[in-house]
Amino acid sequence: MNTFGHIFRLTSFGESHGLATGGVIDGCPAGMELDRAFIQQELNRRKPGQSEIATPRKENDEVQFLSGIYEGKTTGMPIGFIIWNNNQHSADYDALKDVYRPSHADYTYHKKYGVRDPRGGGRSSARETVARCVAGAIAKLALRPYHISIQAYTSQIGSVKLEGTYRDYDLGLTEKNSVRCPDPAKAEEMKQLIMEMKRQGDSIGGVITCVAQGAPAGWGEPVFGKLHAALGHAMLTINAAKGFEYGDGFSAPLYRGSERNDCFFNDQGRINTRTNHSGGIQGGISNGQDIYFRVAFKAVATILMEQETVTTEGVGARLTARGRHDACVVPRAVPIVEAMTAITLLDYLLLQQNKL
Amino acid sequence: MNTFGHIFRLTSFGESHGLATGGVIDGCPAGMELDRAFIQQELNRRKPGQSEIATPRKENDEVQFLSGIYEGKTTGMPIGFIIWNNNQHSADYDALKDVYRPSHADYTYHKKYGVRDPRGGGRSSARETVARCVAGAIAKLALRPYHISIQAYTSQIGSVKLEGTYRDYDLGLTEKNSVRCPDPAKAEEMKQLIMEMKRQGDSIGGVITCVAQGAPAGWGEPVFGKLHAALGHAMLTINAAKGFEYGDGFSAPLYRGSERNDCFFNDQGRINTRTNHSGGIQGGISNGQDIYFRVAFKAVATILMEQETVTTEGVGARLTARGRHDACVVPRAVPIVEAMTAITLLDYLLLQQNKL
Amino acid sequence: MNTFGHIFRLTSFGESHGLATGGVIDGCPAGMELDRAFIQQELNRRKPGQSEIATPRKENDEVQFLSGIYEGKTTGMPIGFIIWNNNQHSADYDALKDVYRPSHADYTYHKKYGVRDPRGGGRSSARETVARCVAGAIAKLALRPYHISIQAYTSQIGSVKLEGTYRDYDLGLTEKNSVRCPDPAKAEEMKQLIMEMKRQGDSIGGVITCVAQGAPAGWGEPVFGKLHAALGHAMLTINAAKGFEYGDGFSAPLYRGSERNDCFFNDQGRINTRTNHSGGIQGGISNGQDIYFRVAFKAVATILMEQETVTTEGVGARLTARGRHDACVVPRAVPIVEAMTAITLLDYLLLQQNKL
Amino acid sequence: MNTFGHIFRLTSFGESHGLATGGVIDGCPAGMELDRAFIQQELNRRKPGQSEIATPRKENDEVQFLSGIYEGKTTGMPIGFIIWNNNQHSADYDALKDVYRPSHADYTYHKKYGVRDPRGGGRSSARETVARCVAGAIAKLALRPYHISIQAYTSQIGSVKLEGTYRDYDLGLTEKNSVRCPDPAKAEEMKQLIMEMKRQGDSIGGVITCVAQGAPAGWGEPVFGKLHAALGHAMLTINAAKGFEYGDGFSAPLYRGSERNDCFFNDQGRINTRTNHSGGIQGGISNGQDIYFRVAFKAVATILMEQETVTTEGVGARLTARGRHDACVVPRAVPIVEAMTAITLLDYLLLQQNKL
Repeated sequence: MNTFGHIFRLTSFGESHGLATGGVIDGCPAGMELDRAFIQQELNRRKPGQSEIATPRKENDEVQFLSGIYEGKTTGMPIGFIIWNNNQHSADYDALKDVYRPSHADYTYHKKYGVRDPRGGGRSSARETVARCVAGAIAKLALRPYHISIQAYTSQIGSVKLEGTYRDYDLGLTEKNSVRCPDPAKAEEMKQLIMEMKRQGDSIGGVITCVAQGAPAGWGEPVFGKLHAALGHAMLTINAAKGFEYGDGFSAPLYRGSERNDCFFNDQGRINTRTNHSGGIQGGISNGQDIYFRVAFKAVATILMEQETVTTEGVGARLTARGRHDACVVPRAVPIVEAMTAITLLDYLLLQQNKL
Repeated sequence: MNTFGHIFRLTSFGESHGLATGGVIDGCPAGMELDRAFIQQELNRRKPGQSEIATPRKENDEVQFLSGIYEGKTTGMPIGFIIWNNNQHSADYDALKDVYRPSHADYTYHKKYGVRDPRGGGRSSARETVARCVAGAIAKLALRPYHISIQAYTSQIGSVKLEGTYRDYDLGLTEKNSVRCPDPAKAEEMKQLIMEMKRQGDSIGGVITCVAQGAPAGWGEPVFGKLHAALGHAMLTINAAKGFEYGDGFSAPLYRGSERNDCFFNDQGRINTRTNHSGGIQGGISNGQDIYFRVAFKAVATILMEQETVTTEGVGARLTARGRHDACVVPRAVPIVEAMTAITLLDYLLLQQNKL
Repeated sequence: MNTFGHIFRLTSFGESHGLATGGVIDGCPAGMELDRAFIQQELNRRKPGQSEIATPRKENDEVQFLSGIYEGKTTGMPIGFIIWNNNQHSADYDALKDVYRPSHADYTYHKKYGVRDPRGGGRSSARETVARCVAGAIAKLALRPYHISIQAYTSQIGSVKLEGTYRDYDLGLTEKNSVRCPDPAKAEEMKQLIMEMKRQGDSIGGVITCVAQGAPAGWGEPVFGKLHAALGHAMLTINAAKGFEYGDGFSAPLYRGSERNDCFFNDQGRINTRTNHSGGIQGGISNGQDIYFRVAFKAVATILMEQETVTTEGVGARLTARGRHDACVVPRAVPIVEAMTAITLLDYLLLQQNKL
Repeated sequence: MNTFGHIFRLTSFGESHGLATGGVIDGCPAGMELDRAFIQQELNRRKPGQSEIATPRKENDEVQFLSGIYEGKTTGMPIGFIIWNNNQHSADYDALKDVYRPSHADYTYHKKYGVRDPRGGGRSSARETVARCVAGAIAKLALRPYHISIQAYTSQIGSVKLEGTYRDYDLGLTEKNSVRCPDPAKAEEMKQLIMEMKRQGDSIGGVITCVAQGAPAGWGEPVFGKLHAALGHAMLTINAAKGFEYGDGFSAPLYRGSERNDCFFNDQGRINTRTNHSGGIQGGISNGQDIYFRVAFKAVATILMEQETVTTEGVGARLTARGRHDACVVPRAVPIVEAMTAITLLDYLLLQQNKL
């Protein structure tokens, strides 16, 4: 279950404090120019230690490609890659070896496997997502000739939230601030909230909105392969994700069919819709409108405040975590949301090619 | 993409107005007593024509098993089954052959496949879910010895919504009313709202809450096979679903880690958590607490009011649908949510057996 | 494990003496004219009771399509189909309920599942292959515009074998005799041998050779998805198959590289090979030459002579089978070999479309 | 298509002359002691440069594990691993860049992907099998507590072949000679033949026989997941494999059912069979007897003699390959056959656990 995708497939490996994280990308189209600078830039977007709001863990996060490329181009062969871990403070985790961190995966991994790697959360750490960003960057490159743009941004941190939709903002501003929010004033509020959490050793969650533009009508598979189900699946695999909605989402129930159906009209010779409450997907298949969705993230479980817990023996204990943690993972999850979107869209584009 | 599951797998077929709907269930454990009365009863729960709020389409929805059973017990062989369609008013759909119904799958199917079956929405119709209910009923039977209970209910219709959580209601009341809401007073309000929509030829959406109790710690697979991602995927494949959230879901961002971490304690010799904001899943793996989640459904696209649209040639047109439609699919989606939950949980139980 | 294929996928169900056999074909290209007469004709080729050498079991083997077709064309939706069993002499099998037939699947199914359906071999019976012929016929129709021809024939029964290769015979003669051998004289010898086996209540095996012509270079996937591995897998799933070889096969070891390499030359502007010892596949990918292979079948296990065996309790017993059996399944396996070849080639053609 | 297996899954990457070869093993049972010395020893068995009959290419072939292991034990997390290539003489291949080697994958890869990595055959080189040996060694470790032994040996080189079956030899002698043949006299003949081929710059093929002992009855899945079909698939993915047969294989057609059925008898309280013509598998499921099969390998395509070919432009050319090549790959394929057998058997053992 460490593989994602049908045709374009990422298989990943690696624990937070192991030697390396990496993966294999299978099914990547051949003959594609691999823009390494772009890939590294995408990795840098999720890198820890980028700003005052993120964990001070320093990682170069340089990806090393091991196969599948010849003279700068993909060959259609599997692309093996690794990112070495060079800043493991595993000693920080010695204290955690014998206790279960509340709301973390310590307990469930232990119950499932009988053993676990306690160093930095092992495989359950978001360190794993670095491999997704590599595959996502390559997927973005593959989607480029199709003029698909994928943009995610932080739309809520704690109770600070953006009003309106993605159309109300200049998404070009997203990367201008450390929280990745296209509204500079809200971004500042969000940042202050995160800094406050950091000071207190506490954590906070948020929401990421993502919009994919340019996908034609016809991507998606009926019934169990609906495009939004694939996107939902993809997003819900990201650490700390608690919910997914697309189009009108959880507000849809409030409206009547007559209020929210997206009426068709002839738009200068092209079939268009008056509105896009559907979020660009109808019956599980893209309709050529913007695909947009939102992903909810909870506050990260690891906090630096004292908590009640039990030891692996079940004995009551008090735990005060140490180590380097993000008080809020949402800003760093923005590129991960984009990566998973790109992987999913490319996979569905390739699935759509399976026609005679 | 008409197959769901890894070990316990449902492959389904059938259009709304074809001869039959059915499927093949592969990977069903052998030696299981097949309680046909229970299976039929589960099918009856989603059957059209059950109450004044549902479509008057009359279907017997009797499932016929064709294989995989010997002397009343499963043999481990694939279970083929069909449900004959006997009440197709396809003539109702002749008018729809050349226009795209707004927010329906007509346009996207046509763009994807070049052809489509316009009779009753074809494969995009919720008629397809009858096969899920067959597989879901069998999954519930398989889960019985594990004492897993799965209960879904309508928690919102339009703006009428239940306060509190599933713990605040007697879920035994759910099936006592036609909207499947465990709060009788709210149920009556919801019913009135749906009846009003029906009178107007309009439609309305809602939310279904589902709780699965009794699953032990250890079900779920790390990274891309997280249990909540599988459940989210399963729910988002249901017709008209727009969102999925588990545990605190979209309200999670409002709280701090210190407020919402589920602290462990020794509960008379057993490890337990003080709260269950996680929704029974941590790091993608069940922790032995109740698994609960919510699914948002939009108002169904088919309404009996005049709407703007285009013909398949792209010419502007006015459409007033006819035919038999639910003004609100949410009550009938309750057993489908349960069915998909049962299928997913059984599949993950079986995946968890894959250990030495 | 009752599903075969990646994009074009057959999921089948049904036991020898159950109500029906059938399946679901997923991923069938949309917009394809479904020539039902051709499909039925393909089914008729494997039907029992066709000639004096085959089992007298009479089955209409009429396929009923339940979905995925609209106005005679495929819609891209899953094609559900059934073939009703109407000639079950289950009483013939009562005597077999408590004993294991030697070299049959009785014992292994029982050990694996704890239960089994003893009527006519249940799922292990070759009756299951009728579903493959339906999917195979559809695959042949899909391959038609690509000018792929697939022809199998009996090349050996017992020790009666054809010399030379498929190029030495007029394959148009294959269907002219009941053993499906393109050499009329050898066909007669084979028939006599089978009749002799039938008289004795014994059985005999044989070899089927298959050639697929017209596939372009480029079908097949490196490493674990090699085209010949997929074909081998497909053939080895056919009842009683004991071996698979392609190109030079088991005679390859006898020759040196210098003797058997297929040298390239410029053949009037087209790259061609001087010989085709490779069997049309190099490095797991088709090279545009004829794809040919051979499949060995053992004598069927069910014979009407007395044999030593044990009861399900492990007690020694003598068994003399009754019922209607083929003394040699090879002639009837010819269309099944073709069907599995067609399914595999179409699947790989569709996989090859997954390129940008 | 660079992934093999259902539950225990190997995804591999790497070209002959790339930076590294490696892979990810997913689904490996947790809590298993990882005996690295054993794994390295298995790798050493396929290593080039071991004897006078093998290619002089020198590779350390040291596997580096990157994840999935904690304190010497598997954690159930994916095991990422790499083997660095340190002896690439890519310059040897410059001459091959613009011509297609006869019977090699050069032409087919080029036709399929439009580009190819010509260095040493790229991905089509048997260098890729080093990853299989890593996964195979781990599978062998996982099978150890089940007392499964897997032994392969060279049973034919050119026309020098062993008579009889695996039961006629002391397989403990297999590794005593460089050709891996348990008959010392035949081994010497085989070696002389290979040396002769080497002197001539020619190549020769052979057959490997493999026997797996200790598997209980019940492994295997009906219809499309038959155990012998999975083994056949596995074997046919190995470079230069041309055929697979199990049990009586291609000699089966020569015998009657009455001669070759494996009669059951009560063997001191245990059900046993008098003979094992079935090769340990009946109806696709293991029956507790020895599983044995044979794999045919052609002479390797790369020879050092002049051959006719064409350039990538289709122009006729003469090619005399250089570089370091095995005159016969069969001896080095012995551990690869064992590795693929171990991977398949472990996977099927795990599939068999999927029962309630």
